[in-house]
Amino acid sequence: MPETISIIPRPKYLRMGNGRFTLNQVSTIACSGEGALAVGHLLAYYLRPATGFAFPVTEGHASGTIRLEATGTATPDEAGFVDERYTLTVNDAGVSVKAQNATGLTRGIQSLRQLLPTAIMADAVQEAEWVLPAVEIEDAPRFRWRGQHLDVSRHFFTVDEVCQFIDFLALHRLNICHLHLTDDQGWRIEIKKYPRLTEIGSRRESTLIGHESDRPRRYDQTPYGGFYTQEEIKQIVDFAARRHITLVPEIDMPGHMVAAIIAYPELGNFKTETRVRCHWGISQSVLNVEESTIAFMKDVLAEVMALFPGRFIHVGGDEAPKFEWSESERAQARMAELGLHNEEELQSWFIRQMDSYIAASGRRLIGWDEILEGGLAAGAAVMSWRGEEGGIEAASHGHDVVMAPNQRVYFDHYQSEPTANEPLAIGGLTTLASVYAYDPMPEALSEKHRHHVLGGQGQIWTEYIPTMEHVEYMGFPRICALAEVLWLEKERKDYADFRQRLYRHRERLDYLGVNAHPE
Amino acid sequence: MPETISIIPRPKYLRMGNGRFTLNQVSTIACSGEGALAVGHLLAYYLRPATGFAFPVTEGHASGTIRLEATGTATPDEAGFVDERYTLTVNDAGVSVKAQNATGLTRGIQSLRQLLPTAIMADAVQEAEWVLPAVEIEDAPRFRWRGQHLDVSRHFFTVDEVCQFIDFLALHRLNICHLHLTDDQGWRIEIKKYPRLTEIGSRRESTLIGHESDRPRRYDQTPYGGFYTQEEIKQIVDFAARRHITLVPEIDMPGHMVAAIIAYPELGNFKTETRVRCHWGISQSVLNVEESTIAFMKDVLAEVMALFPGRFIHVGGDEAPKFEWSESERAQARMAELGLHNEEELQSWFIRQMDSYIAASGRRLIGWDEILEGGLAAGAAVMSWRGEEGGIEAASHGHDVVMAPNQRVYFDHYQSEPTANEPLAIGGLTTLASVYAYDPMPEALSEKHRHHVLGGQGQIWTEYIPTMEHVEYMGFPRICALAEVLWLEKERKDYADFRQRLYRHRERLDYLGVNAHPE
Repeated sequence: MPETISIIPRPKYLRMGNGRFTLNQVSTIACSGEGALAVGHLLAYYLRPATGFAFPVTEGHASGTIRLEATGTATPDEAGFVDERYTLTVNDAGVSVKAQNATGLTRGIQSLRQLLPTAIMADAVQEAEWVLPAVEIEDAPRFRWRGQHLDVSRHFFTVDEVCQFIDFLALHRLNICHLHLTDDQGWRIEIKKYPRLTEIGSRRESTLIGHESDRPRRYDQTPYGGFYTQEEIKQIVDFAARRHITLVPEIDMPGHMVAAIIAYPELGNFKTETRVRCHWGISQSVLNVEESTIAFMKDVLAEVMALFPGRFIHVGGDEAPKFEWSESERAQARMAELGLHNEEELQSWFIRQMDSYIAASGRRLIGWDEILEGGLAAGAAVMSWRGEEGGIEAASHGHDVVMAPNQRVYFDHYQSEPTANEPLAIGGLTTLASVYAYDPMPEALSEKHRHHVLGGQGQIWTEYIPTMEHVEYMGFPRICALAEVLWLEKERKDYADFRQRLYRHRERLDYLGVNAHPE
Repeated sequence: MPETISIIPRPKYLRMGNGRFTLNQVSTIACSGEGALAVGHLLAYYLRPATGFAFPVTEGHASGTIRLEATGTATPDEAGFVDERYTLTVNDAGVSVKAQNATGLTRGIQSLRQLLPTAIMADAVQEAEWVLPAVEIEDAPRFRWRGQHLDVSRHFFTVDEVCQFIDFLALHRLNICHLHLTDDQGWRIEIKKYPRLTEIGSRRESTLIGHESDRPRRYDQTPYGGFYTQEEIKQIVDFAARRHITLVPEIDMPGHMVAAIIAYPELGNFKTETRVRCHWGISQSVLNVEESTIAFMKDVLAEVMALFPGRFIHVGGDEAPKFEWSESERAQARMAELGLHNEEELQSWFIRQMDSYIAASGRRLIGWDEILEGGLAAGAAVMSWRGEEGGIEAASHGHDVVMAPNQRVYFDHYQSEPTANEPLAIGGLTTLASVYAYDPMPEALSEKHRHHVLGGQGQIWTEYIPTMEHVEYMGFPRICALAEVLWLEKERKDYADFRQRLYRHRERLDYLGVNAHPE
């Protein structure tokens, strides 16, 4: 890519043209085709602050400085994804972004932003020449699922912070944001039928100081809380939707449920837990397997599905120790009733109850790779975090898979050495280079099953990440690298070229106020 | 050994003499020396039933058919053991048993019983010639600690049953009986200061049917209980003492405490447990580490030490999961107060509190090999069950050791194949041959530390052994083999010879009503 062009992720095809185009105070945005007008408004929202220009947005084939044209209609595939291809042409006459649908246009305008001088990202008027080089871009992503996860349970972030984070994902043409809404340490989403989930479950008395492995444990003795009302969820969903980012909500079950069990003890097996969990690690406490608990979780998922229109509903399923079920006479009796032979089958049964319900609502269940244990319902998708093996097994058995192996794409892990010079993290070491070198398509997966790999995703678990500044420090620039891994064909990846573009891209992140990890 | 002589364990030195001696209705027992009279009475108790003879017992050097002579005084070593050597001479003039002390005499009379026709073991008068071959026996045990353990918690046995079991141990010249008195499934010893330990802790609502690993679990819904009053403990202690068998009481801590925690919830970390445990396996629940709990356990040990005069007090220490302590804010705070760095050190601290108290009472603490973890107080002894390694490590660091490796001397394990033809057992396979082949002195233990190996012990854990008949089935004849392993020098062991003697010995076991595993 020419030195002056530093788009991340790199577009599939880019040819320099002759000439240039400069935006000015009379530049307009003209939109045509289904959904294009909204994209035009989004583009104007992006361009106005730094330029000070009005960028009036009009509908129709009237000539515009910047023309956004949706040529057809979005037709979601069985996984809910649409064609995201676009072309972006800049010449002496102006700017043209074309795609089949508004999603493709939305991807295109992110590349358009990155064609401008980096100062376009500023939130106040900049003195600059808003010059666009003449280019012809034809672009399409390699993977359909290009996601970033954020754990809002272990630490909580405001609506504005989450939306800003989503906007940063949009800049990188990611299309999925997975919100880990509930865990032992806090239930973060209002459920109207069960108000105690947030009245009680959203607050913990205290938070661990230092690392989970430190002994003796020390606590800050400071209450911590927060949750999103349903109105606030709608705000976040709408914000993401305007950027054609699908939110994947996660209600992690049957483990990671201490907050819920404290709020509603009838959900649990024993009366072990006395409070919302104040430290990290894996709790022994899991949901019981009474019909009432199944009904409760369906009620929760019903409200979640009403709030989140995306196809996939994440039910977690990870790290559910089988200890309580093996000790509980009631759980053993249920196993006998249901003709199940061990606790793995019991978890499988539990997940299948959720899968039936979610499928009957026209959605699809996705869970962490543990949901393979004991047998998995056909339509369920798997998010492979304990390495690639779960993903390979799932895909080989006909399940759709998102690759999220903790060894490669966990951005809560350290990113550079010596780790002593970095803020305390959970552990690990995942450098920018290793992220860029990652390929989500497992070598070991046979060709005929490869179509099941929907894509990949980065994770940010926030046990040791209490502020959005820290989230950004951990997320960027690694999210930039992963975005390119997920967008660009493997053969076209070039780390040296990426580093060169990243150098310029950091100026954008600075203007945007992203607290990225330094070079 | 001549075919007509089948003593188990085999004496160290035995020479045949000329002649023989026959007991008859005018035979007498004459005793001289410290403690010999009581041994004389014990011998009479053994000989009267089958012979119908009176066997008057007299004190003094007056001539007797059977003369028992203690030449000196028992002088216990630092581990509380005395010299057990004896000589046993039979000639035309009569029978003479000599030893330094009454313990040696007691060992001698067991060999004397086994010199008689096997019918001597009958509990009703037998028509037989009570002929003793002329022999000269000089005998001494290889190891000082020759023990057999019995778990009276998982299943309970009456005073009479336990005493009869002890009498069978005495026949085999064993000198230690280790009673596992308390566990998750039942607290079996009355503690006057804490009556709920038995009022509540000695009863469980139900018992698992089948194996711990079966799923789903099934329960018999039948209450189960039992415990020994302090009076009954005294009866057992006295019965054993007359046979110069030392009882080693075990109060297993800080794990294996569910029954106590149900009785006194202030002993626990959480309110997890709802009832005395009704199935097997390892419970997560352990004692908390409050000063009040330390004091409670000292009170318990005080009453135990008042009942059991033996030198060693067993405090268990096995299989205490560290989970609750790592989760409990109070336990973590105690760790901080005490300057401890992890939960292993916390257990080590706990054991040291008990060790100090036991040592101050003039006794010695012994525990399972986990008590090495985190550091062990100098005078404490270790019972190595998880293999030999714990024992080797303990001895190498100057601790006395009893070898009880589960792979070699756990008599709750299957004893023959195919195991499908045997009653349900916990697992494993420990044949009679493998017991006989066992050597308690670890090869890997350097010469200079070998004096720390006090001896060895068989174990009978009773999860799957609900009756004394079944205890006998599992214990015999493997206890016979182990008794010889512990008594006889390794070089003198001869399995073929042992089998030959066992063939005859089985007649004794039959007369005694021992439900031994058949050939």
